[in-house]
Order: sequence, then C-alpha cells, then structure tokens
Amino acid sequence: MIEIEVKARASHERVKELLRELGACVTGVEHHCDTYYNAPHRDFSITDEALRIRIVNGHAVLTYKGKKLDTVSKTREEFETGVDAAIMRNILLALGFVESGVVKKTRALFEFENFTICLDSVDGLGEFIEVETMVGPGSDVDHHRARVFGFLERLGIGEGDSIRVSYLEMLIGK
Amino acid sequence: MIEIEVKARASHERVKELLRELGACVTGVEHHCDTYYNAPHRDFSITDEALRIRIVNGHAVLTYKGKKLDTVSKTREEFETGVDAAIMRNILLALGFVESGVVKKTRALFEFENFTICLDSVDGLGEFIEVETMVGPGSDVDHHRARVFGFLERLGIGEGDSIRVSYLEMLIGK
Repeated sequence: MIEIEVKARASHERVKELLRELGACVTGVEHHCDTYYNAPHRDFSITDEALRIRIVNGHAVLTYKGKKLDTVSKTREEFETGVDAAIMRNILLALGFVESGVVKKTRALFEFENFTICLDSVDGLGEFIEVETMVGPGSDVDHHRARVFGFLERLGIGEGDSIRVSYLEMLIGK
Repeated sequence: MIEIEVKARASHERVKELLRELGACVTGVEHHCDTYYNAPHRDFSITDEALRIRIVNGHAVLTYKGKKLDTVSKTREEFETGVDAAIMRNILLALGFVESGVVKKTRALFEFENFTICLDSVDGLGEFIEVETMVGPGSDVDHHRARVFGFLERLGIGEGDSIRVSYLEMLIGK
C-alpha cells in the first residue's frame, strides 16, 4: 500500500471545531511510544527511509517506510506488522541496527470520507495535524494527494504549510 | 534465551520406539515452510547467524539465531516473534535482505523431562532428530548441553553423530 500523508502545524482547538462542523467522527485516542532504528548498511537519514517499533496502547507494530515519492507530501511505501516489541528490538540490535531516537505523542483520530485525520501532541514539539489516505499500488497518487490538500484547505491549512520533516528529525535537529 | 540444540541423522521408526519406551509424550505435528534471508551488510553463511520467516501450520514467526557458542552442538542465542509473513518479507526485502533458500519439513514433536524432541522429515534431505532445551541467560550451558547428549545416548545416538550444519546449508551444498 502507498500512504499519502500531509502534515502541518495546527492549533488543535481551532481544527477540532472545524472537524466537528464538517461532521468528522472521532475514532479514538492513541498513546504512541515510537523507537526509530537506523541500518548498519545505509543511513536512513540520507536514504529517507524509516524503521520503527511503535507501542500503541500496549500493542507493538514494526513499520518500514520507504523514501518519499514526491517533494510536497509524505507519500511513501509503507509496510506494517504486529510484533513482540522487546523481541523485535533484540532482533534489530543483533542484526546491527541502532536506535536513532524515541518520539512520544498523543494522537486523537478522526475519520472523514476516506481520510484519517490525526491531531498529534508531540512531547517536546507541540501540536500538529496529519491527514492520511492509503491507496493500492497502481492508484493515481497525484489525484489522491490533491484530494488530501483540498481537504486541508477546508481546515484553513494551505499546501505551503506542509511539513515533510519527521518528528524524529525535528527532535534530533533541536 | 539460549537455545541448546543437538541434531543428528536418525531413523524415525527406531527412535519413536525408544521414545515410547521412555514414556516421552507426543505434543504435535507441525508443517514448516522456512524462508531464510541473508543480510546486505554481512554474510550469514560466514557469521553463522540465521534470519528466517517460518510458516508453521498457518502462523508466521520471525526468528533470529546468533552464531553458535561452541564447537559440538548448535547452542546459540535465539529471538522469535509472531509476524505477518507477507509483510515481514516485504520489510526485509525493502531493507536490502535477500532470500537465501527455502526449507520444507514435517516435524513430529515429543516432550520428555525439559527436552523438546523433534523428528524432522526434511524435503530432499531425509530423517533427522533434534533435541532442544531453552535456558535463561547466565545458566550453566555446559551442564545443560551434557544433559542433552546424555539423553541422546539413551536413543542410541552418540556425541560424534552430532551435525552442526543447518538444513539450509545441506540443501545449498547439495
């Protein structure tokens, strides 16, 4: 699957009001503790990949994200499987992967049409919105990305507000 | 955990009779389809590590095995977590790992004292026995390995019969 994702800084108070007016449904609140790993054979901060173990409300998932496929959004290939967090960490360390950082956040989730809207409060960074849609291989990515930007405009967020830097990069760069 | 494991060729008909006489319990039959992967940054056939996705009776597990810790048995560090097989495969390939081979076998499992006895019928290789015991870090590995060899003697298998070559290596070497 291809994840089309756009992120921007946003005051949650204001955005929540607009989401309510649109009729978007709240679907949950998640507490994320994300540990990122870098590879021994290539530097993910250069190749623009990500490998992460996320613990979300007590469950663990391993996620790989490929390099971004365009210059304006965070569209990229993504693979995700449930794992045992402690054991997966041991496997990665034994293979020579190294921990590159930890991102902790609270994510309020909303659904609207086929978008997932995440209102993220990130420890040490502040408030953000992420709008995501997943599309199958061979889909018209440009069309779906335009739809995501169109939706963000309704929340008062323009294409120029899009941030492609990851939370991890923001935290490391601080 | 440390896996202490000894493997040897064995006629299953003869061993099953001895296991029955000892009172070992049959605990199950598993069908394994094991896909092994090699790393992009080091050659596991040289470092003596193994990374595998096993599909066993429809469930998938990712296993990492470290290099062997002695010269007579297959004692080594082992980490294992449940995964989604197809997605984990995609993650490994995206990270640059490559498939090194597939081993298919039927394994009849027996328990006796704290040993797991595996009678393996391996496609293309024939019949084998593996006796395993798992011990915590800091345990007396020599003592536990000697107990495994002592048990194998009761099945008519001597220390000199121990095979340290993996099924994968046997298949590749054929």
